[in-house]
Amino acid sequence: MSSPLILITNDDGYQSAGIQALARAVASLGEVYVVAPDGPRSGAAASITCTTPVSFSALSVPRTYSCTGTPVDCVKLALEQIVPRKPDLLLSGINHGDNASVSIHYSGTMGAVFEGCMKEIPSIGVSLYLQHGQSYEDNPVSEDALTAIAELCRRVLEQGLPQDTCLNVNLPVAHRFRGWQVCRQARGRWSAEWITAANPRGQQSFWLTGQFTDLEPQAEDTDFAALREGYGSVVPVTVDMTAFAAMERVARLVQ
Amino acid sequence: MSSPLILITNDDGYQSAGIQALARAVASLGEVYVVAPDGPRSGAAASITCTTPVSFSALSVPRTYSCTGTPVDCVKLALEQIVPRKPDLLLSGINHGDNASVSIHYSGTMGAVFEGCMKEIPSIGVSLYLQHGQSYEDNPVSEDALTAIAELCRRVLEQGLPQDTCLNVNLPVAHRFRGWQVCRQARGRWSAEWITAANPRGQQSFWLTGQFTDLEPQAEDTDFAALREGYGSVVPVTVDMTAFAAMERVARLVQ
Repeated sequence: MSSPLILITNDDGYQSAGIQALARAVASLGEVYVVAPDGPRSGAAASITCTTPVSFSALSVPRTYSCTGTPVDCVKLALEQIVPRKPDLLLSGINHGDNASVSIHYSGTMGAVFEGCMKEIPSIGVSLYLQHGQSYEDNPVSEDALTAIAELCRRVLEQGLPQDTCLNVNLPVAHRFRGWQVCRQARGRWSAEWITAANPRGQQSFWLTGQFTDLEPQAEDTDFAALREGYGSVVPVTVDMTAFAAMERVARLVQ
Repeated sequence: MSSPLILITNDDGYQSAGIQALARAVASLGEVYVVAPDGPRSGAAASITCTTPVSFSALSVPRTYSCTGTPVDCVKLALEQIVPRKPDLLLSGINHGDNASVSIHYSGTMGAVFEGCMKEIPSIGVSLYLQHGQSYEDNPVSEDALTAIAELCRRVLEQGLPQDTCLNVNLPVAHRFRGWQVCRQARGRWSAEWITAANPRGQQSFWLTGQFTDLEPQAEDTDFAALREGYGSVVPVTVDMTAFAAMERVARLVQ
């Protein structure tokens, strides 16, 4: 069997500390390709570029490319134009900031993961849960946690993931890795999302910001609960968004 | 009880024929606000604008605003800066092209709907399934179908939707509306996604395009099956992306 092919992308851009840490962590598991945006794409979700062409450039590091598009564009371009065969694993991250709870919907990190999953590649997004005042640079992911990520990747390479399922992994800031908890997406809400931007032309404009509220602070089986307790959270995520539990009620609604 | 407040957005921009048809269709149900992008945002998914400020302008039509951001930005701005109270219903569309199967993940139309749902507003996305060579302008949504959408909205205003659940509605091109089918998201795959763009500077660049394949052409309970048969498809969609069916297998994987 040939060496596994691992494709890595992110939404913070190829220069970010997180993607470099991730590439280093899994370097011994196979042949690693990095295809990542040429700059920050935070909040890109699974967006794709429809109104302009997209291009990519090989960088001086072997098998490393920067791309003018979104994280999903990076994956689509890599698969058709860059990597020599279908990857055995897709990784996205390590994101500067968590993608737990409903933040998964805005996350460019997880957008790339959905894309890998829809292309039937086992795909994992990794993000770092930073609390107020913490920065990624001051709180790099510990070697301990990077070892745990590599072990998780090794197992996924060996065993695969269920159909249409990918993983949303979030890590707490900690020197010692305490272990994984498999959990569900917490119910959450963003509010107070805009602050007025200074504008020299007099027009009102707004910066997106916001405060997150965990709507289930008592629950013990959510990603936020795991992170609060200092565990790495692993949410199995499906790209089938059908609300099966709601089918009957909606069927009555349209009758 | 005061008149319901209905917020409408889309990803094709406020000038598009689809959003105007939708606003007209539900005008008699309540007080309608339109807050939509200032131009096309196809493929915007649930992306948000993090790197620049966003602004909006009131247009000459009452309660109609254009916004420089994404569809999700439109919803977030409308809720905090424009509408006088929490909307009773959020609509997005009518999109030029379907958002059935996995296209839901790239859809700016549905991104706005997820946002409404996460803000606990009953939310519905409406898209038009155009086949090769069809354009929205040549195939406007029939009066018959617009009446059916208005009736669906009336019922949702009356009965609400289950928690964390929104609707992904797609319409076939047809003069007579044949009825709704409540269904699940079809498994599908996009491939052959890039064509080389002419580039006067010599750099290789690529336009995103692609061919869609329904991976379950025999299934009768999917959105694509309903559309092929000439029905309007209604997929109940959950913003909880947890793959509950995969929890045990993933738990064994990380043990």
